Amino acid sequence: MKQVELRERFAPIVMTAEEFRAAGHRLVDRIAEFLDTVQTRPVTPNEPPHVVRAALGDGPLPAQGAPPQELLDQAATLLFEHSVLSAHPRFWGYIYSSAAPIGALGDFLAAAVNPNVGAWNLSPVASEIEAQTVRWIAELIGYPTDCGGLLVSGGNMANFVPFLVACKVKADWDASREGLRAPAGRLLRIYCSAETHTWIHKAADLFGMGMDAIRWIGADADLRMDTAELRGRIAEDRTRGDLPFIVVGAAGSVSTGAVDPLPELAAIAREQGLWFHVDGAYGAIAAALPDASADLRGLALADSVAVDPHKWLYAPVEAGCALVRNRGDLFKTFSHRPPYYHFPEHEGEESVNYFEHGMQNSRGFRALKVWLALRQVGREGYVRMVADDVRLAQALYRIAQEDPELEAITQGLSITTFRYVPRGLKAGSQGTEEYLNKLNEELMTRLQAGGETFVTNAVIRGKFVLRACFVNFHSTLADVEALPGIVTRIGAEVDKEWRRSAGL
Amino acid sequence: MKQVELRERFAPIVMTAEEFRAAGHRLVDRIAEFLDTVQTRPVTPNEPPHVVRAALGDGPLPAQGAPPQELLDQAATLLFEHSVLSAHPRFWGYIYSSAAPIGALGDFLAAAVNPNVGAWNLSPVASEIEAQTVRWIAELIGYPTDCGGLLVSGGNMANFVPFLVACKVKADWDASREGLRAPAGRLLRIYCSAETHTWIHKAADLFGMGMDAIRWIGADADLRMDTAELRGRIAEDRTRGDLPFIVVGAAGSVSTGAVDPLPELAAIAREQGLWFHVDGAYGAIAAALPDASADLRGLALADSVAVDPHKWLYAPVEAGCALVRNRGDLFKTFSHRPPYYHFPEHEGEESVNYFEHGMQNSRGFRALKVWLALRQVGREGYVRMVADDVRLAQALYRIAQEDPELEAITQGLSITTFRYVPRGLKAGSQGTEEYLNKLNEELMTRLQAGGETFVTNAVIRGKFVLRACFVNFHSTLADVEALPGIVTRIGAEVDKEWRRSAGL
Repeated sequence: MKQVELRERFAPIVMTAEEFRAAGHRLVDRIAEFLDTVQTRPVTPNEPPHVVRAALGDGPLPAQGAPPQELLDQAATLLFEHSVLSAHPRFWGYIYSSAAPIGALGDFLAAAVNPNVGAWNLSPVASEIEAQTVRWIAELIGYPTDCGGLLVSGGNMANFVPFLVACKVKADWDASREGLRAPAGRLLRIYCSAETHTWIHKAADLFGMGMDAIRWIGADADLRMDTAELRGRIAEDRTRGDLPFIVVGAAGSVSTGAVDPLPELAAIAREQGLWFHVDGAYGAIAAALPDASADLRGLALADSVAVDPHKWLYAPVEAGCALVRNRGDLFKTFSHRPPYYHFPEHEGEESVNYFEHGMQNSRGFRALKVWLALRQVGREGYVRMVADDVRLAQALYRIAQEDPELEAITQGLSITTFRYVPRGLKAGSQGTEEYLNKLNEELMTRLQAGGETFVTNAVIRGKFVLRACFVNFHSTLADVEALPGIVTRIGAEVDKEWRRSAGL
Repeated sequence: MKQVELRERFAPIVMTAEEFRAAGHRLVDRIAEFLDTVQTRPVTPNEPPHVVRAALGDGPLPAQGAPPQELLDQAATLLFEHSVLSAHPRFWGYIYSSAAPIGALGDFLAAAVNPNVGAWNLSPVASEIEAQTVRWIAELIGYPTDCGGLLVSGGNMANFVPFLVACKVKADWDASREGLRAPAGRLLRIYCSAETHTWIHKAADLFGMGMDAIRWIGADADLRMDTAELRGRIAEDRTRGDLPFIVVGAAGSVSTGAVDPLPELAAIAREQGLWFHVDGAYGAIAAALPDASADLRGLALADSVAVDPHKWLYAPVEAGCALVRNRGDLFKTFSHRPPYYHFPEHEGEESVNYFEHGMQNSRGFRALKVWLALRQVGREGYVRMVADDVRLAQALYRIAQEDPELEAITQGLSITTFRYVPRGLKAGSQGTEEYLNKLNEELMTRLQAGGETFVTNAVIRGKFVLRACFVNFHSTLADVEALPGIVTRIGAEVDKEWRRSAGL
């Protein structure tokens, strides 16, 4: 061993304070300029994979290193020029928000100090900030602030965590040791609306229960869960000897923003001894609005709620949040303490080790960006921004209603769906509906490629419709008013091309 | 609706370019100063929860907002003063590395542009950078570069993903629909060494199989899996009618850095038709060293490997990586496409949608920080830094061997374990061993509280031992040479106090 060398260690990954300041200032300036000019760029680069790959360059892992500032400059240019811009005021796709600038600075600070928020003793103040963030999120949506909870990667995990808790709490055998094989051939049963996000497919598929466990409950005219059908299916399953264990309600379905009748679902779950989970990954934040519906406020009755700060709190990805009414249930589900985790106790004081409350052991400090944004704008700032997102969606619905070439389809929370119907075409017949579906599908593809705006789709009662979801504090009424013109112009182009090629 | 207002939107979360630059520059300066002075601070703040909470302040979600720069300043001060400093040259706890400064800048850039790396069309260049990062990691450790893989939150998830794939691939019924209830009462069986990290408890417990499915295979004198016992248990289980499906080997156990005989495990798994997974979350990177053992290089034979860039590639948390030999297996396990995900295809070109390769749908851009660091130092830079970590651990072992008050216990990869044995005390008798265990436990607590250094523990054949894990490019031989003096000084204090209070 060359001991001499190890006294002055070779560590090319170190940046001197001077290098760090220079590279950091330059990156701040480039990001500031980028954020300031997003609206002048196309929303999408619209490049096929081979073009993006050519810009990136291929090749093996470099043998030698390169100067960090140069690499950061390259990376910034690549990202600014070849990304979809959710910070664009006309980006309304999926449920994917514009990111708060303070969130990016928060992620920077978190990564620089690098607390591991798995254990309190490894991240004292970060663990406390996460706990405070969880309480504030609960408070904002009207959920009990003494609940358990933690920040997770996003909506899937924010739903998976309570789902796994429900399995453990409701199994009347030792599922930790014996698995989810219910004794005597009974089958566990999940109840949710057919509008539920695919997290439920993934959960049932991956976590050992199987998708056959899911009872898809029909929806009413407003795409809300049919509670009569729910009661009927639970009764049937009990008669068959199955084990109903969870009801999942939506606080803002992903396609239309529909809110299930949560108070009624809560009552059914209570009466039947089932776990009541609310998927509010998108819409739970809207419960903070003064005019929130009683249905939405019913999430306060749930055993658990998923709510994603990287949706309607405008945090950069990743920031989901799982809330569970009884924090002891989280601990019972997730705590496994190996002999090499030996944490001194703090006598008489509670201190949360988050590795015992969720799926991860090592954990980053996702809470910081959320905590900073909550403090930057306060409750009143959020209420106002969220309310304005809803009002923009409502404005779009009205505009679509009035536009002779658009058909307004649904409006819920900050999601509006609509479709393009060429002048003179009478919707209704099967052939026309098929044509309209193909037309709107192609229209959506061209809209996304065109870079003027970004909307996605839903499929509602067999109709392929365009869908705009407003979780974007950059959008104004002018942006919304511009959309119909773009849609009908491109829609008419497609219609004309297709008619011409069909010889019409 | 007040349409006028929505033309000039109220969005207190926006920062003007000027505000962003000012706050960003100030944060860069504060972080640069912090990173430059870490070594002058205590490694741990050593404050009980109520002190940390008092510093943070309690109270409800603020109704009103506050200026972002002020909040960032407060947050930086809180974090600098009340965190455990993994960037300190004498931090050697758990497997928790010093973070690359370029990684923090990478996380900043990622969050500012905010690509959602769930779908290629939402994150063109970010998806390509992630794919390149996965290839480079595979190349670095000698795994096939055409494998599947993705960045995940950390070691648990990097092991969970392949575990879930193995369940699906090896179940000979439709487990996606029917769950993990094997037909005809057969039980799935997992084989791993008793030294396996608790991810395996969590996986078996949470994912429906139950911990009874785990067959704990004994270890040899070097704490490596006993392959004769493994063969015996598989044969027994087959005779009983159970369904062996996975063998888990360690490439660097968490307690001692032990590497299981991976080529032999691969041969057994192949012969028996079992999935062979290697948990290399910590140690797989060491396979890049020119003098890596044949056992370690055997990870190239695995069906899947977990490897964490936030361990030995010095990325800030979170960055784990799951590699799966056949990328189609990832897709088959995780792809669920809802009707509202409608992505235009790129004719004849492959483009990965990562939501179909793992548990998350929305995904952050974890790969950027890893990609930047790989390019900053290159393969040669990493090989040198990782080799030096190993040499420091070896140096500590030799020093402990030579110190009359220390007992060197194990040395593997960059982990060394040892314990304090007071002069004149003869280890061996049951009473003495119990005393030594308590003594070293108290010693570890005081070491961590003292703030001079940070080591954690292992429990090896009933002995509570101190454990230093070097994944820290700041550490030099001088830091290692300082450790025995600190340990024996504090150890002697505890011993003296205890003897005195026992009247000895």
